[in-house]
Amino acid sequence: MNHQEALTSYIAAFVSELVKNGVEDVVVSPGSRSTPMAMIMAEHPELRVHIHVDERSAAFFALGIAKASRKPAAILCTSGTAAANYFPAIVEAKVSRVPLIVLTADRPHELRDVGAPQAIDQIHLYGNHVKWFVEMAPPEHSAGMIRYARTVCARAAATAKNSPAGPVHLNFPFREPLIPHLERDDLFELTERTGEYVSIQPGELTLSNEQYEEIGKRISSFTNGMIICGPIETAQFSDAVIALAEKLQFPILADPLSQLRSGKHSGEYIIDTYDTILKNEKAKKALKPDVIIRFGAMPVSKPLTIFLKEHQDVYQYVVDGGGGFRDPGMVSSEMIYCQETEFCRSILPFIERENESLLLAKWQKINGVTRSHLGKINALDELSEGKLFYQLAKLLPSGATLFVGNSMPIRDLDTFFHFNDKSISVMANRGANGIDGVISTALGAGTIQQPLYLALGDLTFFHDLNGLIAAKQYGIDINILLINNNGGGIFSFLPQASHPKNFEQLFGTPLDLKFQYAVEMYGGHYDLITDWEHFSTVMNQNKEKSGLKVMEITTNREKNIREHRELWEDVTREISRLLEDEC
Amino acid sequence: MNHQEALTSYIAAFVSELVKNGVEDVVVSPGSRSTPMAMIMAEHPELRVHIHVDERSAAFFALGIAKASRKPAAILCTSGTAAANYFPAIVEAKVSRVPLIVLTADRPHELRDVGAPQAIDQIHLYGNHVKWFVEMAPPEHSAGMIRYARTVCARAAATAKNSPAGPVHLNFPFREPLIPHLERDDLFELTERTGEYVSIQPGELTLSNEQYEEIGKRISSFTNGMIICGPIETAQFSDAVIALAEKLQFPILADPLSQLRSGKHSGEYIIDTYDTILKNEKAKKALKPDVIIRFGAMPVSKPLTIFLKEHQDVYQYVVDGGGGFRDPGMVSSEMIYCQETEFCRSILPFIERENESLLLAKWQKINGVTRSHLGKINALDELSEGKLFYQLAKLLPSGATLFVGNSMPIRDLDTFFHFNDKSISVMANRGANGIDGVISTALGAGTIQQPLYLALGDLTFFHDLNGLIAAKQYGIDINILLINNNGGGIFSFLPQASHPKNFEQLFGTPLDLKFQYAVEMYGGHYDLITDWEHFSTVMNQNKEKSGLKVMEITTNREKNIREHRELWEDVTREISRLLEDEC
Repeated sequence: MNHQEALTSYIAAFVSELVKNGVEDVVVSPGSRSTPMAMIMAEHPELRVHIHVDERSAAFFALGIAKASRKPAAILCTSGTAAANYFPAIVEAKVSRVPLIVLTADRPHELRDVGAPQAIDQIHLYGNHVKWFVEMAPPEHSAGMIRYARTVCARAAATAKNSPAGPVHLNFPFREPLIPHLERDDLFELTERTGEYVSIQPGELTLSNEQYEEIGKRISSFTNGMIICGPIETAQFSDAVIALAEKLQFPILADPLSQLRSGKHSGEYIIDTYDTILKNEKAKKALKPDVIIRFGAMPVSKPLTIFLKEHQDVYQYVVDGGGGFRDPGMVSSEMIYCQETEFCRSILPFIERENESLLLAKWQKINGVTRSHLGKINALDELSEGKLFYQLAKLLPSGATLFVGNSMPIRDLDTFFHFNDKSISVMANRGANGIDGVISTALGAGTIQQPLYLALGDLTFFHDLNGLIAAKQYGIDINILLINNNGGGIFSFLPQASHPKNFEQLFGTPLDLKFQYAVEMYGGHYDLITDWEHFSTVMNQNKEKSGLKVMEITTNREKNIREHRELWEDVTREISRLLEDEC
Repeated sequence: MNHQEALTSYIAAFVSELVKNGVEDVVVSPGSRSTPMAMIMAEHPELRVHIHVDERSAAFFALGIAKASRKPAAILCTSGTAAANYFPAIVEAKVSRVPLIVLTADRPHELRDVGAPQAIDQIHLYGNHVKWFVEMAPPEHSAGMIRYARTVCARAAATAKNSPAGPVHLNFPFREPLIPHLERDDLFELTERTGEYVSIQPGELTLSNEQYEEIGKRISSFTNGMIICGPIETAQFSDAVIALAEKLQFPILADPLSQLRSGKHSGEYIIDTYDTILKNEKAKKALKPDVIIRFGAMPVSKPLTIFLKEHQDVYQYVVDGGGGFRDPGMVSSEMIYCQETEFCRSILPFIERENESLLLAKWQKINGVTRSHLGKINALDELSEGKLFYQLAKLLPSGATLFVGNSMPIRDLDTFFHFNDKSISVMANRGANGIDGVISTALGAGTIQQPLYLALGDLTFFHDLNGLIAAKQYGIDINILLINNNGGGIFSFLPQASHPKNFEQLFGTPLDLKFQYAVEMYGGHYDLITDWEHFSTVMNQNKEKSGLKVMEITTNREKNIREHRELWEDVTREISRLLEDEC
């Protein structure tokens, strides 16, 4: 068996097993050393091969596919700095628990650390930021090594998927010549077995019946409880947690990424303005619970994080099916390692409400008042970042996916995007909250979910401009709401804003770019939004258009902060008045 | 002493020491966690603070500054994926031995691995790809901890500079509040000592007099030797190696990055067309030496690499002041760990030529013929990648810096850019040979060296499009020669080119972008070159213009490979004829 045949059989076995283990998409960045894997992947009839020249964007694109499909996506690149460009998306995948299979081609052992071109140390290249690293054996054709390629592949896919999901990294040393032998009928054949070579059944963390009973009873014994749902994407969780809230008569403070703010379920228990409410000290006192059950990652709301932290004396449950420790305030009383949907369903039979709670009604009332007062933003004539997110609940079509950038968009979404029954799926890169790779992640998600809307600021848009190439090359439909306040809007909300010296240079960082040029370069459709009527018209017209569509909304950072502060002051006065009336 | 004062004193001591240790430039990417360091840096009167929103480009920009200035440059970013974006440039800095001081802000210990926002594991974030990592102690004001901040800083700068130079990484945990107290006169004052707090004298590897004598005598005993200079930037090396070549009567095969192909020194010993010559098997036999002395990183030429590898029986010296092992062919006979300039000077007194060599004359003759035949490319009427590099030796002004992209530009430069007396400094990212970060590295170099020319292909241009923002924001003068063959030209030279199925999708990867839009977005001056006269006119006109200037030269990948092959076949026939005549 010669080199070429060994290379071909070994890699084909790997690629075949990849598909059998549920991988449907691979994002390939062009390169020489990765040639055998790339050429064999392109031959597989069931694998979608996406090409992306910029590895940083490529990895985020795959992240988006995996986030939206909840299936591991693979990425492949050549040796050298190409692989280092994957790092930001890998870090995000690890923290946000998204399954990613990272495949890097490498020089063979004899060409490492000897000054060979494009050779860098790729062993454990991503350190702790992947769940599993394997330095693959050089390709060999023996039955044993084919078995090895298949089982490592199956383990990689299973490890990526297993809770907490995350990235895995396999490094492949390839010797020249790199061209595989593709003129074979049996390229992906597995004769000795049917289905995948080895099937790995993923387990989930669960509790014993005794534990469920004990916890259920204990929770029932509290009087005033509340549920907090941070970013979470566990299947069927929404229904399960609403059923639990109903039985407990607890309000649910629902983060915009909890998937609870939109949907056909009842909105009765959903509290969607807590970020504003909890800016009011009186409200914090009035709304204090004696027990909190928290699900998902940490919510975006800083007032809520502070609220949690200030209430060490409240019994706080944190339920985490991924076995992490999501508690920056160090205030959890019980950390429960159990799949979240399973937890809600399994404690339900053990819930028996002993004491009637007034907390739900209080939250509902204050939430209602706050929601309607925040709605005043809709009366603004001028273009406004807050109003944009308020409008979205109305203007987005049901079934839409709304991807939001970090910094201000996710915060404005939190404040202004209120409960609606439209089944809008909300996504963001909230693992490490970076402003990088957002366009690519959204576009990756857009290959799975449509229609797709992306709302992001100008710095975030700029950071991943290269990501737009995927929209052009693959004709992916995307509606981008580019909120251009010419710089970093969030810093105006931070303490450095009161130190004007060097502020614009270090934090404001205006880019003064006409993004219309970029949109034209990528063959997109561009509109500079002039007013709200125009916005609504363009939103509607764009539904009929395909490909890349960018709506630019220009705002002003200083006016924006004033607008937010005035509204919050107004609302908080209203909340205080309401609470005084109650007393 | 409160938190704010401790934070301020500790960081100001660090920044003060940074400047005292020769750091003049820092590239800052905006962020919240890095606020204290950024604000204090902006206060230092002797530190140039460059702002760059995209951390990937920012790090390459700093790499370019450090490459050109041969002084460590610093980069600063906030916590999270921002820091991961630095990775490609750090990898390149390590392999290409460029001093870089990487400063990352981090969450304090209590906010790590507990789901806090923008918190990732930054300990040893870059693994083996930095020379030194320090997890800094949290800011404190005690005399001991101020001393600590200063000494770690001095060590970081020294470690980055010490041979082999490279990147170091310091990770700073910062607790809120993050605003330093800047209203102090003594911010950067060091009262107890003058100059830097601790001065670190860098040593260089050298040999004993006995070793120099032994090596000098041994080298003298060979009959037919040659010197090979790969990429090298050691100060005063050019003169030292030419003096050595003169005494030895050895030819110097000079890589385009050896800094020997241009300059006021004599070109008598410089062989600049070996890449073409060594494609000819007869020439390889006729030009075989009995000893080789090699300096610098591995040359770009593949025929030369093969030539070295095929000659295990030739006594091969490799001189490396950085103590590496740059020998992918595993053919070195002696690895000499000694600073290169020092080595050339110190063995010189011990060189006594015993036997007259014919090898120098042979190389000179064949080189002359090859050079003049390669010059035929200049007769082409059509736009051509090869001719472009041939023309550059004529069109570039003396004193220019020519930065070249990897893949084809550096190879075309190797083939067509011949010896000239113009003092042209040639630069490239030849550590890991990536196509990433090239625009930014060139722009960073452009803040130190002018006039600046950058020749690169369309994929490389695309990969770092964001890098152009620095040209716009800082008004850096740069002349970009954008060679647009709409895809990856180098793959046409590789074996996969004979497998047309999927070739364009996987390797050709045409982007079909009108880059003029990008140039306009960044406020640059754009010319689409129509013919050679136009090129020469625009090159001249642009000398009078400032800022970003892009000249786009469109070529065709298929025609390009034909053109190269035909010329090489022609030249190799000529070389064979010459060798037959000699016999």
